[in-house]
Amino acid sequence: MEFQSKIKTIEWVDNYSKMVDQTKIPYEYSFINITSGDEMFTAIRTMIVRGAPAIGIAGAHGINLYAQELAKKNLTREDFVCELLQKADYMKTSRPTAVNLMWAVEKQKEIIKNSNSDINGIIEELVKNSIKLENEDIEINKKIGDYGAQIVPKGGTILTHCNAGALATVGYGTALGVVRSAYANDNTIKVFADETRPRQQGARITTFELVMDNIPVTLITDGMCSYFMKKGMIDVVIVGADRIAANGDTANKIGTYTVAIAAKYHNIPFYIAAPLSTIDTSIKSGDEIPIEERSAEEVTHINGQRICAEGVNIINPGFDVTPNELITGIITEKGIIKPDYKKSIAELF
Amino acid sequence: MEFQSKIKTIEWVDNYSKMVDQTKIPYEYSFINITSGDEMFTAIRTMIVRGAPAIGIAGAHGINLYAQELAKKNLTREDFVCELLQKADYMKTSRPTAVNLMWAVEKQKEIIKNSNSDINGIIEELVKNSIKLENEDIEINKKIGDYGAQIVPKGGTILTHCNAGALATVGYGTALGVVRSAYANDNTIKVFADETRPRQQGARITTFELVMDNIPVTLITDGMCSYFMKKGMIDVVIVGADRIAANGDTANKIGTYTVAIAAKYHNIPFYIAAPLSTIDTSIKSGDEIPIEERSAEEVTHINGQRICAEGVNIINPGFDVTPNELITGIITEKGIIKPDYKKSIAELF
Repeated sequence: MEFQSKIKTIEWVDNYSKMVDQTKIPYEYSFINITSGDEMFTAIRTMIVRGAPAIGIAGAHGINLYAQELAKKNLTREDFVCELLQKADYMKTSRPTAVNLMWAVEKQKEIIKNSNSDINGIIEELVKNSIKLENEDIEINKKIGDYGAQIVPKGGTILTHCNAGALATVGYGTALGVVRSAYANDNTIKVFADETRPRQQGARITTFELVMDNIPVTLITDGMCSYFMKKGMIDVVIVGADRIAANGDTANKIGTYTVAIAAKYHNIPFYIAAPLSTIDTSIKSGDEIPIEERSAEEVTHINGQRICAEGVNIINPGFDVTPNELITGIITEKGIIKPDYKKSIAELF
Repeated sequence: MEFQSKIKTIEWVDNYSKMVDQTKIPYEYSFINITSGDEMFTAIRTMIVRGAPAIGIAGAHGINLYAQELAKKNLTREDFVCELLQKADYMKTSRPTAVNLMWAVEKQKEIIKNSNSDINGIIEELVKNSIKLENEDIEINKKIGDYGAQIVPKGGTILTHCNAGALATVGYGTALGVVRSAYANDNTIKVFADETRPRQQGARITTFELVMDNIPVTLITDGMCSYFMKKGMIDVVIVGADRIAANGDTANKIGTYTVAIAAKYHNIPFYIAAPLSTIDTSIKSGDEIPIEERSAEEVTHINGQRICAEGVNIINPGFDVTPNELITGIITEKGIIKPDYKKSIAELF
């Protein structure tokens, strides 16, 4: 039985990108139309769209938008291609950690470089390719879901961190794709969602999309995970990824590493669920993954209200790296990768 | 050199209890006068006063207040004593986990039971005893601070969770008492404060009191601790305690256990700082410590605003238990207790 999610996070419509405005969730489920490349850059940076696979698609759409704008400037084909490739590289800088953005933009750059068409033809090819990436994302998520469902015990409880759901992808999810596929087979499974401070993607987005799809979800604060693990109330941890190194070390939302350590201490399996496009074989280990530093306000304020004294120092890393020794397996569209990751990842690529 | 804190959290004045209203911090540093026993019960339950040693003193003041009220009822001395002892037992139920409350109320019950005075004389003795407990609390904290300062490395960074500070005690602190004593000797030490969701005592109260006392503090979200540990930015973890079992297992604010596991994984020393009144030798292990379940709204709302979808489930344990194997030492007013805790605690009592 296939699970039908109600959510479509991002899609190309005619000549613009239509996306769920995730800064409004859980208060409002509304859409925003992004009609220029610079708007897309800002949408990615300010997390109107977030989640590694979703910002990959957003990046691809961004190239379509820049192409449409440049086409109005009466450039030669050569200048058009040159400027568009520069815009593409600029788009990659909107967020540094998730590699899917770089991957999807590179896919669009290949279209630009390999095209034999005129300017309008290049735009047509870019749009067509971005729609192909959208469709593939859902197909890949469903395959991840099906492979992952096998490791969810009957009636089990899955702990997840941040949001690696339909709202982090085009519409099904990676970690929550596993949840959806498992739930389609066994509607007695449950989800525990970490709040995921500072941006609260677990509280805001994961609870929202699971409630929307009628999957039971319990919200916990980030410090509580070990309490519930010790009580035997968590059977498996499944999270997404922003970038996976060639040795399996995995960057994901800040706090993931802490959950992985707690899982190890309690002998609870800890899985990553991510498409192969998240694996960056160009880097040997997690030490090489750039970690985005975000603004102090994300820590000091919640919903615009200050929650701490004036005069505190803040360091706000957006991600952390979970070392491969804490990871039971990486669930991909080609099956579940197991240690030794260096070897098993090399075999896949 | 002795550190002078600006904070006096709770004190008996004439015929009422004057305390900092901690629900207003960090927005306002204001005082509230508690003038009846039932008001005190509510003040403890709603966390106007919080922190294990502070609610011990609050409980003792509560008995003074109940005694004053009963004295107006024209009871016989026998009935007065009988009703007051009942009120004392009721006061102990205002919060279940911190044993200091039970300890301080029992101290007042001993005064009531052993007194040879008339009703007014009993009240005088109760007030005198509660003021003695206040003064002892500060003296004990300073001794804890002095013993604890020895384990803080020069220029080191201390991570703490929740608030075990001046505002959790009468006026100096346990974990933050160690910080104050260490800082008096070496003003290059630093503090990292966990936010401590759901009630954010770290963000709200620890940052407030350290900024007030000019001690450098960096606020981090609860999931970040492992990130900074891995980076070598944390030298030692010091937290307070709500109840310590005879084997050293320690109940403290939810999330402490997660930090302890992370510290163990990174080989960082993890200390408890607490007065001996926090040790409950009547219970063998942490399994016997009652864990308070608090309201769902603490998780679903921050400053009155909902932060998650409607329809989520909530479980909100107020505390967790850190097993003795994760604890490097327990810093008390009689020195630092080391493993084997069962043996070393038994020797102290």
